[in-house]
Amino acid sequence: MSGVTVYSVKAVGFVRSALKSRRKAPKQGSEGAPDAWLQMRPSVAKGLEGIRVGEEIILVTWFHQARRDVLRLHPRGDKNVPLTGVFATRSPDRPNPLGLHHVRVLEIAGNRLKIGPLEAIDGTPVVDIKPVLSGEAGS
Amino acid sequence: MSGVTVYSVKAVGFVRSALKSRRKAPKQGSEGAPDAWLQMRPSVAKGLEGIRVGEEIILVTWFHQARRDVLRLHPRGDKNVPLTGVFATRSPDRPNPLGLHHVRVLEIAGNRLKIGPLEAIDGTPVVDIKPVLSGEAGS
Repeated sequence: MSGVTVYSVKAVGFVRSALKSRRKAPKQGSEGAPDAWLQMRPSVAKGLEGIRVGEEIILVTWFHQARRDVLRLHPRGDKNVPLTGVFATRSPDRPNPLGLHHVRVLEIAGNRLKIGPLEAIDGTPVVDIKPVLSGEAGS
Repeated sequence: MSGVTVYSVKAVGFVRSALKSRRKAPKQGSEGAPDAWLQMRPSVAKGLEGIRVGEEIILVTWFHQARRDVLRLHPRGDKNVPLTGVFATRSPDRPNPLGLHHVRVLEIAGNRLKIGPLEAIDGTPVVDIKPVLSGEAGS
């Protein structure tokens, strides 16, 4: 466990959204977030084959504006809630600022996917897309 | 979109499991995988505060033995299934080999968490832990 093991994550696409600042973004997609486009890199377009309109997917993003040195915080920024470890919250501020977003595919146009609802802001890097497994099906 | 945007992911812990090789591991936790321990780095221990035994969490791992140059494959290694884009599968082989695991917390001992069931093999780096949101609750 000595030393720190580091890996490199590459942006395979970017979020294109009307949400321009973290301050104005909802905390979760279900809290009034808009639909958005995923502009995927042409080099990974083949990896999208098999994704269908209407399906639910798990979008994995990299919160590029997050703080990585935060280990405890007040959930949802509410000072009335006791300090909580970041791994017990969905805060974007965390050692590896990965975002998980359970969204629906609304439209596919080449290497662009319209999905929603999504609380991530414009310019957020996309690092992975996965199908939802039956045990993960949301309400 | 020119150039490649790269970020660094740090291991915040490691999986300790009886599963020693990828060849012998189940494809999903629900397919007979064992329980396992997460040995978290002491430096992130504060981030675990608030996680409770019995809760479901989403464990995010880095599949360190995966191939990152694969964009299409036969799902589950079944040649009878047509080639499919990796983003429409849960294969560990993908541009950013992140694993998502919906598991239950069974025991907490300092900076070690017993969780399960988990198909990831011994030595797999842990990169994040998140609570399950109500819309993501599995069966």
